[in-house]
Amino acid sequence: MQAEIITIGDELLIGQVVDTNSAWMAEQLFENGIQLKQITSVHDDAEHIRKALDEAFSRADIVLTTGGLGPTKDDITKKVLCDYFHTRLVASPTVEAHVRALYADRPDVLNRLTATQWLVPEACAVLENRVGSAPIMAFKDTRCLVAMPGVPYEMKIAMTEQVIPWLNRVIGESVNRVSPDTPVKGEPVNRMMEHRTMLVNGIAESSLAILLEEWETRLPDGLHLAYLPKDGTIRLRLDGYGCEQELFDNEWNKLRESVRDYIVLDEDRPIELAVGELLKNRGLTISTAESCTGGKLAALLNRHSGSSEWYKGSVVAYANEVKEHVLGVSGADLAQYGAVSEQVVRQMAEGVRCLCQTDWAIATSGVAGPTGGTADKPVGTVWIAWAGPDGTQAECFHLGKLREQVTDRACTKALIKMLKNLQM
Amino acid sequence: MQAEIITIGDELLIGQVVDTNSAWMAEQLFENGIQLKQITSVHDDAEHIRKALDEAFSRADIVLTTGGLGPTKDDITKKVLCDYFHTRLVASPTVEAHVRALYADRPDVLNRLTATQWLVPEACAVLENRVGSAPIMAFKDTRCLVAMPGVPYEMKIAMTEQVIPWLNRVIGESVNRVSPDTPVKGEPVNRMMEHRTMLVNGIAESSLAILLEEWETRLPDGLHLAYLPKDGTIRLRLDGYGCEQELFDNEWNKLRESVRDYIVLDEDRPIELAVGELLKNRGLTISTAESCTGGKLAALLNRHSGSSEWYKGSVVAYANEVKEHVLGVSGADLAQYGAVSEQVVRQMAEGVRCLCQTDWAIATSGVAGPTGGTADKPVGTVWIAWAGPDGTQAECFHLGKLREQVTDRACTKALIKMLKNLQM
Repeated sequence: MQAEIITIGDELLIGQVVDTNSAWMAEQLFENGIQLKQITSVHDDAEHIRKALDEAFSRADIVLTTGGLGPTKDDITKKVLCDYFHTRLVASPTVEAHVRALYADRPDVLNRLTATQWLVPEACAVLENRVGSAPIMAFKDTRCLVAMPGVPYEMKIAMTEQVIPWLNRVIGESVNRVSPDTPVKGEPVNRMMEHRTMLVNGIAESSLAILLEEWETRLPDGLHLAYLPKDGTIRLRLDGYGCEQELFDNEWNKLRESVRDYIVLDEDRPIELAVGELLKNRGLTISTAESCTGGKLAALLNRHSGSSEWYKGSVVAYANEVKEHVLGVSGADLAQYGAVSEQVVRQMAEGVRCLCQTDWAIATSGVAGPTGGTADKPVGTVWIAWAGPDGTQAECFHLGKLREQVTDRACTKALIKMLKNLQM
Repeated sequence: MQAEIITIGDELLIGQVVDTNSAWMAEQLFENGIQLKQITSVHDDAEHIRKALDEAFSRADIVLTTGGLGPTKDDITKKVLCDYFHTRLVASPTVEAHVRALYADRPDVLNRLTATQWLVPEACAVLENRVGSAPIMAFKDTRCLVAMPGVPYEMKIAMTEQVIPWLNRVIGESVNRVSPDTPVKGEPVNRMMEHRTMLVNGIAESSLAILLEEWETRLPDGLHLAYLPKDGTIRLRLDGYGCEQELFDNEWNKLRESVRDYIVLDEDRPIELAVGELLKNRGLTISTAESCTGGKLAALLNRHSGSSEWYKGSVVAYANEVKEHVLGVSGADLAQYGAVSEQVVRQMAEGVRCLCQTDWAIATSGVAGPTGGTADKPVGTVWIAWAGPDGTQAECFHLGKLREQVTDRACTKALIKMLKNLQM
């Protein structure tokens, strides 16, 4: 069973909006055993949308679209799909009732444009959009298409609660099976699709590939290794198509053994989640003091629900006065060694640990750039300190030349060492 | 002159990586007057890549690809392009010298796999990849193709410093002109392409569309309005293809006049940058105290270079102890009103303003969810306070049901009001 995604909107093609929907949808499809063949982004243009639909259906059985479902003039997806499936718009009392309930406390929004939202193509099944007004439209003839709004929050809820169950129902058992050698639109076969990912650190991509070369060359058919460098680390993903689970596990274990000295995590999970889980399981707490990362580390740690159980707080100490007066860093040390120094970063970590009364604390201080670099401390120089029950460690890194790169990598380095500290 | 982007990598199709490259590249193309027709993401599969190239060249003159240029086995783009352009790989002494210099202090990386990076297709021009080892390959026959690495930092530097200048040189003057009615592969014509965007807040999309309906219906040919809702605000983008600048400006001014009560910014710029610029111009400083936004507001304010001139620091006060002991929030008020309350958020803003000795301070406290909601304060309830030279304001918002949505919208609301305060 193969699928394609078409994201619709001029904003995608002039770079005004990053298409985050596709990756999220791809993950959902993958988890449900549906292989994604291609992602295509097109303009709000009827001819272009039709052509993209034709091309997608020539390769795949299922097409998911996002975007172009708003009540405004620039949104044309509903009209185009109506023509494409040779049907017409009719009023849906169910959607009308839903939209009226949605805006019950905002009567001004219940205007004549909003009323066009409850006009739906006669030939489609309407799936509920619990948090928005645009109906989710599911078409099924020899082809299968679901159109969702482009607003990520609406799409995510619709996909999870409505679209995946609908696909599973309509396509039945076959949705849970896939094989790369299934001909397009072919019959489903009972073979596995599996991916597993580990995160490694401290080795260059090419050195890693040489280390794994012999094993990789001998990989049985259907197994394949991918290298994904990110923020100074590498994710290694083993893909298995149509092979036995035992064979897959066997090769996975060999891989893990070969790179054991470099493994940070042997699953595909954000490091901050792994750190949080270890803290939580041991009843430990953490705080952060950030200079160059400017709040990014705190935001990462708080991205996932439940962080309040182990995360207490952070001081973003951009200014030296804040380092001195809030975190208690010695003014003499700031003057003598500078803000980007081992002395200062240690005091920042110890200061915030004491201030927030946590078991652990991480501090960062560096030159994120593009300005502020010196011969002695060029852009990319970052000091990181970890203060814990057994004392404080500090390490200096050189993390590149671009502001975003430097701060992203600094957060990753901070979390990797923190994870190691907790694993010990 | 039309272009297409093809991003290559299995990781994109299983949702392991979000394609942020395309939007960034689209913006660059747009700024250089090159119209982007379609974005396509495909697997690391030779047949699939070739087919995508054929399809793209049937619609466009220029194709940009990212991904698949690493030294490891899973990366096949270079080989595929070699076949596609009927050429062969030859060693490039320039690339070799560059790669050797790049890894001068890491001799272990200069292994035989890294050495494959200086093999390049004979038929292409090699552009410098200043920060990475994969050569940028520019092909030009009747078609024009540039292949870049998928690592965003490398792609961005290459695109800015090498690819855009190369495109401008190769395609010459025509690159700076575009028209929607130019036939595919047609001759360039001297007509304008323009987009301008404003950010509005405080009105529903449908109500806005009704407000603008009469004006929008009468828009001259070649002008078109797009609505882009985000984080509770709407970006309105006026597109002009092939029309006179004066006509465009005239309609832009009419649009601005019609929505003047709702305008936050009349340009497409992150709000935090506008806030930062106003602070800087007036010699003012700011700090933040965050509970539910958990560092996101600080990270936003510090995303752009130069923030240290006006941004002093932040306290992320997740735990009530931190609110009390670091920010000086009254323990009695915390107990009586709860952390998500007007009383507490005001004290947080005033506390951090005093602690960091800034002119302004913003504080957030809310229920980001998915847990922690009560009948009284459901998920999505967020109190925000702004403390300034003339006192403190506070406002309560209801920002949705999803954690990410709530925190993103809270940051947006905090910045909009801050901007208004500074504009007064």
